[in-house]
Amino acid sequence: MDFFPSALENLIDKFAGLPGIGRKTAQRLAFFVISLPDGEAEDFARAISEAKSSVRACSICLNLTDGELCAVCRSERRDASVVCVVSDPKGVLAIERSHEFKGRYHVLHGVISPMNNVGPDDIKIKELISRVADGGIDEVIMATNPDTEGETTARYISRLLRPFEVKVTRLAYGIPVGSSLEFADDATLMRALEGRMEI
Amino acid sequence: MDFFPSALENLIDKFAGLPGIGRKTAQRLAFFVISLPDGEAEDFARAISEAKSSVRACSICLNLTDGELCAVCRSERRDASVVCVVSDPKGVLAIERSHEFKGRYHVLHGVISPMNNVGPDDIKIKELISRVADGGIDEVIMATNPDTEGETTARYISRLLRPFEVKVTRLAYGIPVGSSLEFADDATLMRALEGRMEI
Repeated sequence: MDFFPSALENLIDKFAGLPGIGRKTAQRLAFFVISLPDGEAEDFARAISEAKSSVRACSICLNLTDGELCAVCRSERRDASVVCVVSDPKGVLAIERSHEFKGRYHVLHGVISPMNNVGPDDIKIKELISRVADGGIDEVIMATNPDTEGETTARYISRLLRPFEVKVTRLAYGIPVGSSLEFADDATLMRALEGRMEI
Repeated sequence: MDFFPSALENLIDKFAGLPGIGRKTAQRLAFFVISLPDGEAEDFARAISEAKSSVRACSICLNLTDGELCAVCRSERRDASVVCVVSDPKGVLAIERSHEFKGRYHVLHGVISPMNNVGPDDIKIKELISRVADGGIDEVIMATNPDTEGETTARYISRLLRPFEVKVTRLAYGIPVGSSLEFADDATLMRALEGRMEI
């Protein structure tokens, strides 16, 4: 179907390549973008380039940042002795929204998932262990998603951390089982933090 | 919520500004884009710039094209004496998919919609009238959407075309092929009965 100019077809293809975006939606988005005023379409293109080029992993917690350290690790008010382990940056956002947690994070960038060929070495577990080995951390809160893979990852990590003098806890099941951290409401997340238990 | 680097927040904002894309989806898309290999993210950015800069309106039918004329108007096989009027380029695609129409198009780029402050002068009606006035057109097929606004636009245009020696027709209403009578709404069934044809 080549009734659209090739540059437009190309843009539709790009949108259709995004997760959860079908062909019709991609068309709608591409049409919208080319109908934007010149400056705004350029802004969009530039936003992609800049996000891609400037965003990197925080050298302490591996959360996304545009500097050497992320906002949380940079802050002197945060308690470096408590580390909350999340599977991805959206987890950090979710926990921050609860305004309950004053420690730092560790972003795994994934969970152990044999079905998807993701093993322990494919996510940032080594980096967490070496942070703990370096000392200064009293508690590690496992805040991976409360599903099978998140649970497996949490238990795997807690086993690796046993040799160290560190308390390992898990978010309490205030969060509904089988859902995703990203969609938990603030109050539920707050309860989950309060009720965290040692594993 | 400024826990993400500003370049990433900016990209999320851009995605959230697209029609039908909420904040959570925008986050998901932005994360996906920055997780793409370098080259691919750049390709995406370039696709936007190129689509925006190269796509323009065909000088005859106002369909989108990257040249002076669109593929349909360029083709010598198409019958220039029949013009199918659609509200937007997606209408062209839909009609082309049927492989039934051999004439040319006229893209209105909108429909008359007083609710949205779109009047007859805001869409490409003048251009259609002057095409017809230039001569060489025997039939104008109104193929705007079968809703109130599309219908109003079709009737408005057909009135403007009355002074000219041109047949003005409308796509037939009826039950969609492959559907079930049971699910057809009353208005459609009424139109289907009115438009019944001898077999």
